[in-house]
Amino acid sequence: MKLSSRNLDPALNTIYDAIIVGGGMGGLSAAIYLARYGLKCLIVEKGKGRSLWMQDLRNYLGLDPHTPGRNILNHGTKQALDWGADHLRGYVEEVTDEGETFAVRVKVGKTESIYPVFRSKYLIAASGIIDNLPEIDDMQNLYDYAGYTLHVCMICDGFDMWDQKAVLIANSESQINAAFVLNWFTPYISVLTHGLCAVSDQMKQKLAEHGYPLYESPIERFLGKNHKLHGIKLVDGTVVEATTGLVSMGSVYHNHYLKGIAGLEWDGENLITNDMTQTTHNRIFALGDLKKGLNQVSIAVADGTLAATQIWRNIRRASPPRKWEENLVKS
Amino acid sequence: MKLSSRNLDPALNTIYDAIIVGGGMGGLSAAIYLARYGLKCLIVEKGKGRSLWMQDLRNYLGLDPHTPGRNILNHGTKQALDWGADHLRGYVEEVTDEGETFAVRVKVGKTESIYPVFRSKYLIAASGIIDNLPEIDDMQNLYDYAGYTLHVCMICDGFDMWDQKAVLIANSESQINAAFVLNWFTPYISVLTHGLCAVSDQMKQKLAEHGYPLYESPIERFLGKNHKLHGIKLVDGTVVEATTGLVSMGSVYHNHYLKGIAGLEWDGENLITNDMTQTTHNRIFALGDLKKGLNQVSIAVADGTLAATQIWRNIRRASPPRKWEENLVKS
Repeated sequence: MKLSSRNLDPALNTIYDAIIVGGGMGGLSAAIYLARYGLKCLIVEKGKGRSLWMQDLRNYLGLDPHTPGRNILNHGTKQALDWGADHLRGYVEEVTDEGETFAVRVKVGKTESIYPVFRSKYLIAASGIIDNLPEIDDMQNLYDYAGYTLHVCMICDGFDMWDQKAVLIANSESQINAAFVLNWFTPYISVLTHGLCAVSDQMKQKLAEHGYPLYESPIERFLGKNHKLHGIKLVDGTVVEATTGLVSMGSVYHNHYLKGIAGLEWDGENLITNDMTQTTHNRIFALGDLKKGLNQVSIAVADGTLAATQIWRNIRRASPPRKWEENLVKS
Repeated sequence: MKLSSRNLDPALNTIYDAIIVGGGMGGLSAAIYLARYGLKCLIVEKGKGRSLWMQDLRNYLGLDPHTPGRNILNHGTKQALDWGADHLRGYVEEVTDEGETFAVRVKVGKTESIYPVFRSKYLIAASGIIDNLPEIDDMQNLYDYAGYTLHVCMICDGFDMWDQKAVLIANSESQINAAFVLNWFTPYISVLTHGLCAVSDQMKQKLAEHGYPLYESPIERFLGKNHKLHGIKLVDGTVVEATTGLVSMGSVYHNHYLKGIAGLEWDGENLITNDMTQTTHNRIFALGDLKKGLNQVSIAVADGTLAATQIWRNIRRASPPRKWEENLVKS
């Protein structure tokens, strides 16, 4: 059921089997499975997740390679609702581990916000990441290319950069190292730091040895039309010719609500999970980009399957068996 | 490229980066990723895999729940071909580990068969399983219900059996135990052995304690119409009322071609793999139903992503870096 500030009462009196933080690919897959296990779940989706920005989902079996991320999100949300999941647009502010349950405080509404608290036995962290992008004066100019010819994921879109002149936009020396993977797809790489980091002599030498020019001036503007990049104009007046680009500037992890919870083990900002996506807290599961591993739609979708199945197993094993009462011999 | 007995010559002179045994959900996902990594792969598909029989794929994010398995298979095959994979209809008879390469002998054509041998650096075992079904005189009568109201996967279809009268068709005592999981979805379970196994007194007592009747006579015929089951007629004349059923009779594993290869570790018929689906043989990967874990489309699709990515990493790391030659300072 679609929830909003006007119809929250039944949900506030429910102890959900699971609350899913994030209605992206992983969270929706988890919801579809949970609902089809007959379990009660609530998806809390803040909007504007990473997959919403994808213009073309090229590598997911069964969908046309021009399917935009938002189409799957809309379709999957409807699937989850149809099977019986609850869905609320809101922002998870805080999660408190109450022992048997979690209390999940959600901000609903941008203005005149309310702060309902929902409860669940299990928590599925599926709130993902969002890519850092270079800040320029006219961000719309960047959005005209992001997801079209300016990419954030080499595994997803490296193929579409094949042997093109490409910029790699990096904000640290370790991110510059992506050039030495990107060169699998194209050797025509110009490295741009957007003025965000110093570059060591050692790295400069390595780039020079590969023939990859380095530009340390900030980006002024992306040049091109119809989402097709032609070049990048830097603040110092240089124009770098490029028909494609990769932004390699790290990510913001949407995991603040987990930071106060005891028992979670982290690897940097990623949660450590077992082969069923269970974290080191046995009632918290982490999916997709929040856990260690590949940041791919197919992986997040499978993670949703795994988390939901393990939660079902746990709940089922703790439940009394259902008997066929009319066949029981009365003793 | 679609291969057949008429256009095999270029393929026979190719060392593929990977040969994928099985063009089901996992194999196709692997092919899409491999092709988009710019790697050369060949899918060998024998036809009639498990997912071809699925009438409705209920739980895969992004597709309508009435999508038949064959639609995804056709769509995914086209996707893989479009990105540059090769595809051959044939049956892998034998795989020989030659050290640097595998030699994969394929039977092509049912009549006047030929037996070409293809070579690859890596092997992806994605040939899956097929469910055992009860043998009856008129198998078409069974196929009228299989995949519609007679299911083989509880995780996939348990929800659609909710509180219905159901038969569980089992061929061993351990398979009868599925009743005590199926009762999550419905308690109205009749257990049928189709005359295939003896049932211990202990199991009989446990079934009786749950109120689940046991029928040991073989099945004569499935009753109903338009793929909707009404009941099952047994050879002894009994009619068991049921509107749905689960066949729990184990599976045939399509893994014969791996049995002679040294270095593989097995758990029963499943291959042991690491978190990138790599088996204990470092040039063989195993996907989906052939490896340990859930037999779900979403899992197989993610496995294809993982295997292809690890193969790409291995090949990329062993390749000389591509330099931007015109920028190199001549020394």
